[in-house]
Amino acid sequence: MQKTSLNDLEVAEEMADAAREAILPYFRQSNLETSNKLSGGFDPVTIADREAEKAMREVLARHRPDDGIFGEEFGQVQGSTGRTWVLDPIDGTRGFISGTPTWGVLIALSGQDGPIMGVIDQPYIGERFLGSADIAQAVGPTGTMQLSTRSTRTLDEAILFTTFPEVGSLQDRAGFEAVAQHVRLTRYGMDCYAYALLAAGQVDLVIESGLNSYDIQAPIAVIQAAGGIVTDWQGGAAHNGGRALAAANADVHAAALEILRNY
Amino acid sequence: MQKTSLNDLEVAEEMADAAREAILPYFRQSNLETSNKLSGGFDPVTIADREAEKAMREVLARHRPDDGIFGEEFGQVQGSTGRTWVLDPIDGTRGFISGTPTWGVLIALSGQDGPIMGVIDQPYIGERFLGSADIAQAVGPTGTMQLSTRSTRTLDEAILFTTFPEVGSLQDRAGFEAVAQHVRLTRYGMDCYAYALLAAGQVDLVIESGLNSYDIQAPIAVIQAAGGIVTDWQGGAAHNGGRALAAANADVHAAALEILRNY
Repeated sequence: MQKTSLNDLEVAEEMADAAREAILPYFRQSNLETSNKLSGGFDPVTIADREAEKAMREVLARHRPDDGIFGEEFGQVQGSTGRTWVLDPIDGTRGFISGTPTWGVLIALSGQDGPIMGVIDQPYIGERFLGSADIAQAVGPTGTMQLSTRSTRTLDEAILFTTFPEVGSLQDRAGFEAVAQHVRLTRYGMDCYAYALLAAGQVDLVIESGLNSYDIQAPIAVIQAAGGIVTDWQGGAAHNGGRALAAANADVHAAALEILRNY
Repeated sequence: MQKTSLNDLEVAEEMADAAREAILPYFRQSNLETSNKLSGGFDPVTIADREAEKAMREVLARHRPDDGIFGEEFGQVQGSTGRTWVLDPIDGTRGFISGTPTWGVLIALSGQDGPIMGVIDQPYIGERFLGSADIAQAVGPTGTMQLSTRSTRTLDEAILFTTFPEVGSLQDRAGFEAVAQHVRLTRYGMDCYAYALLAAGQVDLVIESGLNSYDIQAPIAVIQAAGGIVTDWQGGAAHNGGRALAAANADVHAAALEILRNY
């Protein structure tokens, strides 16, 4: 198979389109879920997860057969280009099974030093966040906007998001709460959508733990393109997963990191 | 002024359309928020709240001049019909200022014994949930669907939503947590959207406290139309605000109420 003339961003958008089409028929199908569970079959989120990753891998087979792939559902395929597509077809399965439009399709293209392009797509809203060296853009129900992070300087002005209190060890949670007590507002339950909101200049901090690399690589690329910073809780690289601190700018990142370093 | 030929549902939809138009220009306008705060003016959520309620009252002045109005922003207008329109132009202001599409416009029409029609509208997604004796319907980005609550029978199968941990007294929170420890999944941070998800058959329970009547009347009407139940934590009427227990059906309502009664 030969590479096509599509650029990387066009390939990523074709993948996101394919994932949308695969997933949406299963979203909010609670009756289906019940009947499948009674008959011992897969539940819809598992089916949708697999079908979406399969659809994205088919796009890659057509357009980027020599790149590597690392996906949540079907594991690793070695490539020959030094580039890897990192896929999480449904990030936020708890949100998905609750019907909230806060889960997303995550697509990252990663080089030797981490992600160089990322897509966060919310199929139900029809909203897509794109980030690379060339683009920092959201396309949604009210049109297209440039992504640009906020200039909040201090924690007491900051809005903080997390998937806590439901995720993370007691130690992780203590670190999160040590930051939370200094901020203006803490909000919960947004899954990957919180990272998109940070890139869109709506919130200042996202703190999480227990992440896989495919949970965080697309958010890193989108947030960096928008002017933000993502590290682990010691200030090191976050693209291999674990604990993540995403921040709108260097000032608010430094303020949160100073606290998280102790946990 | 004379009444027009629009029925109550058509009036409510015209109100919701007017609110959407008033609010959306202010949603995710973080730069505007910052500059307004520096100059000591209103922030966007306050402006949007007031403009939306004003727009809805204008619709009522045209079509239902004799009905009463109770709105969050501009208080009470006595009517002569025994009917009152109960309005919360932006329910979920914390969600609004964080950019999450989980806030909503709440419109209820209330008789002597509580709400008889309700609308929960999410302008950014373009999604509207309607409930009355005649209709139980959602219209959103993927089309129109009938609202119908789930048949979950026991707490250990149930999905629970709340705005906790950030809202409520310690006693309220203890009641919530006593139920939460029995359920399959607890999720946070959805504002009024959680009630819409319950009506849409996606979740089983919503538990909240510290509510005003305009926070809960539209959700009551939508959920009842879809087959669900909303009471306070003692099993009494919830439409005057305070604590609310919304449930998909009588079984799961009874199971949660048995616990909440003690708080």
